[in-house]
Amino acid sequence: MTQVKTSLSRTEAWSLTTLSLASVAILVQTFQGDGAPLVASIAFSGLAYALSYAMIRWLGGVFIKAANMDRPETMGAVCAVVYLLAIICFIPFPFYKDIVAATSGGGNRDLVLEVRQIETGRFLHRFPHGKLASYLSAILSLQSVVILGVGDDLFDIRWRHKVLIPAFASIPMLIVYFVDFGVTSIVIPTFLRPYLGELFDLGWLYYAYMAAISIFAPNSINILAGVNGMEVGQSIVIAILILFNDCLYLSPEFLPLSLPKTPLPLSTPGSSSLHPATDSHLFSIYLLLPFLAVSLSLLNHNWYPARVFVGDTYCYFAGMVFAVVAIQGHFSKTLLLLLIPQIGNFIYSAPQLFALVPCPRHRLPKFNARTGLLENSWADFTLPEERFRDELDATSTSNSEAESNGHARKKSRIVTGRHSTLKKPVQSALKLLARFHLIRIEVDSSTGEVLRATNMTLLNLWMVWFGPMREDRLVIGLLTAQAVCGLMGLWVRHRLALWVFTVDNW
Amino acid sequence: MTQVKTSLSRTEAWSLTTLSLASVAILVQTFQGDGAPLVASIAFSGLAYALSYAMIRWLGGVFIKAANMDRPETMGAVCAVVYLLAIICFIPFPFYKDIVAATSGGGNRDLVLEVRQIETGRFLHRFPHGKLASYLSAILSLQSVVILGVGDDLFDIRWRHKVLIPAFASIPMLIVYFVDFGVTSIVIPTFLRPYLGELFDLGWLYYAYMAAISIFAPNSINILAGVNGMEVGQSIVIAILILFNDCLYLSPEFLPLSLPKTPLPLSTPGSSSLHPATDSHLFSIYLLLPFLAVSLSLLNHNWYPARVFVGDTYCYFAGMVFAVVAIQGHFSKTLLLLLIPQIGNFIYSAPQLFALVPCPRHRLPKFNARTGLLENSWADFTLPEERFRDELDATSTSNSEAESNGHARKKSRIVTGRHSTLKKPVQSALKLLARFHLIRIEVDSSTGEVLRATNMTLLNLWMVWFGPMREDRLVIGLLTAQAVCGLMGLWVRHRLALWVFTVDNW
Repeated sequence: MTQVKTSLSRTEAWSLTTLSLASVAILVQTFQGDGAPLVASIAFSGLAYALSYAMIRWLGGVFIKAANMDRPETMGAVCAVVYLLAIICFIPFPFYKDIVAATSGGGNRDLVLEVRQIETGRFLHRFPHGKLASYLSAILSLQSVVILGVGDDLFDIRWRHKVLIPAFASIPMLIVYFVDFGVTSIVIPTFLRPYLGELFDLGWLYYAYMAAISIFAPNSINILAGVNGMEVGQSIVIAILILFNDCLYLSPEFLPLSLPKTPLPLSTPGSSSLHPATDSHLFSIYLLLPFLAVSLSLLNHNWYPARVFVGDTYCYFAGMVFAVVAIQGHFSKTLLLLLIPQIGNFIYSAPQLFALVPCPRHRLPKFNARTGLLENSWADFTLPEERFRDELDATSTSNSEAESNGHARKKSRIVTGRHSTLKKPVQSALKLLARFHLIRIEVDSSTGEVLRATNMTLLNLWMVWFGPMREDRLVIGLLTAQAVCGLMGLWVRHRLALWVFTVDNW
Repeated sequence: MTQVKTSLSRTEAWSLTTLSLASVAILVQTFQGDGAPLVASIAFSGLAYALSYAMIRWLGGVFIKAANMDRPETMGAVCAVVYLLAIICFIPFPFYKDIVAATSGGGNRDLVLEVRQIETGRFLHRFPHGKLASYLSAILSLQSVVILGVGDDLFDIRWRHKVLIPAFASIPMLIVYFVDFGVTSIVIPTFLRPYLGELFDLGWLYYAYMAAISIFAPNSINILAGVNGMEVGQSIVIAILILFNDCLYLSPEFLPLSLPKTPLPLSTPGSSSLHPATDSHLFSIYLLLPFLAVSLSLLNHNWYPARVFVGDTYCYFAGMVFAVVAIQGHFSKTLLLLLIPQIGNFIYSAPQLFALVPCPRHRLPKFNARTGLLENSWADFTLPEERFRDELDATSTSNSEAESNGHARKKSRIVTGRHSTLKKPVQSALKLLARFHLIRIEVDSSTGEVLRATNMTLLNLWMVWFGPMREDRLVIGLLTAQAVCGLMGLWVRHRLALWVFTVDNW
């Protein structure tokens, strides 16, 4: 058992202080200068890293005392609170330019003209309040997910209720999207345009789609979890990939792909000569940079051997950050491409999640103390002879209806030896999966019945393929796979888009 | 010990279902009609009441299990979450009229003209995004206070850190106020106008003032607490008084006071013929009605004998609701008039809070099991003979400096009998307070020293005046006092305003 430290070492304290001071210096500079929001966002991320690093350390002892655990759980909540503080304090920066323009004219001739209109009451409208409301609604959704996530970590909420936590948290965002005249039409692929036109208004279906993304992203991260560093690691990889994609839109020179040459008719002043999607992607960068910072500081403590655990809060929070930036930035399809391992894990897990195949309470890989390696965990489909007999007695006395249905007769037929409770078709399906090396199964040599199988999670699949391994090797392998899948996804997205749509971005 | 029920009785279930159905019916009606936000707000309050009532009951068992207590604590958090859900879902309603106007022209000629401007990009600006941002920032602040409050309830945070929780929570509101070109100038009273002009811009001092209100309101409620129903009761009284004050602005006919006849130059379309402050007070009503609803349902469970406790979360949350509506509605001075008992309690407590007079860990009135009544709790200033001697030895060996300063000599002078640790001036002050019946003290008959005094809280003061009483009588008495003080405050505010300023409202 690793000792939990609750104070910073001398080196740590110095590094964090230096980082914080540098960040504050940059912020002051930014605020006095032209208020470059991107620079401010980086500075806030530095501060967020330092603060969450220190908070995780300091609060470690408090958490252990409160929860009576030997290692602090729910540290994701601490990171989330630091993150929220950072993006709240950041609010003035993206709008700073407008404030300067509003109060002094900003030296820009067009703006000076606007200032003259102050008495007509139209002046205040120049300020991009619409964007502010989106930003605030994003924060609201993230705060909601933190509140509900902490509730989930404190009280053991049932699985089927848990799934809906992100749905509740997405309400503020969806409502503000609605109130804000959000776009609900989608661009139709070229080959369908003769039938559906160029744009197609999905209406309320679009809201259902956004809610589905909000539900899927957090939960898919939450089920690819349970190994030191896995939750935070995958979130960091995904965040970096989204940031990479965002950067493609920032400067036209970097864009290797064709761009629509005409600006959109409704473009607001300020976005002027840039790509029309630039604003959405800047928005995404502002939300992701501090997220990356707090996640890195959490990974520092959560990497194998972990000194703190992240809790469900972190998984919900991370997934919600991705859902929020993708929805508000209108790149939810791209997000799905980056979540391919999570989608794969969900599909692979589905037979167990939906109880087609028995699912034990925990499906994590098992630690073998002798070798120091993680090994596959197994779902057991057998009932040992004695227990089976007891159960049989219990059913036959309490549930006579089942008996008359032939259940009891079937059961009493095989009482000797171990016996698989799986139905024949399920057994055949499992055998097929095993043939494709997608699971490992144990078959009774005499009856040919499937007695047990490895649990269906990506973590177990990785070890079906590559054998038992140390915890950190497993995580590194999966994170590499995540990064490779994501990069391929992005490549496909930007290449294929040109074939399916006339231009890359909408 | 009262048994904790975790399910609804038949009658309760029926009443709550009826209430919910009626509320939903009203909401549907409202959404199809002209979207009267006030009616919608009342309907949402009905739903919030039903939901929080049921949730408190259902979650009772879960809370007990999680915290290992015999009665559920932190139920305020449940109410707060229900409240947040209600005001988030309410967002479309205050802006509904504008949506209708935007999409169909709304039958209004002026608006139809506006619709033609859609291609110039100016159209979207008609939507009152500025108000939406204020509303969202209010929700953000309330969510923040809930997150931090739950943290406080879970971990025993130190008193001096606790005080700052509302300060952190007020950050989103203040930042959006800043970004939103918030008004930072105040109206100068008539007799000062020759020197300062009609308006005076406080600048950043105004932000400090708003932060101070946000810190004071929640903490002042948190220290007037600890008796069944006190926290919720006072919050309900204050909420009703603010609502009463809001109603004065709603309809000009109801206003008994003079009004400025000319509309403000910057007034936006929509607020047209009404009092210029109407919008702010509507905002306040929208936030307070659901608050009143969840508080009433909580009071139902928290009234003597309480089956659930509210936790610090509720106090912070309630105080923050008041601070938010007062700040955004620009009636923070009126709020202070309604908080007179809380202010009095704070001033009265100050000697103990700032350690001029020793302060025991808990200052709640004491329950006398024999009479079934609450009695004054006392702060003891004496050290019993033996303990005093021990301490004296300890100091004389470990701290020789103190000895040379004469402390040891002074102490060794009186080692027989009980001895007051208070300095002479403090004793005189306490005797003076006792003469004015503001505390009760116990004086050593031989030395004349003050040995102990009743704790300085409003709860204790009430019993200094009216003697021991049952818990619910004490609460009823204090709530009545709160209501009377508040009504007088409102009367003074609207009468005096005419003398100090030229018109009542600004």
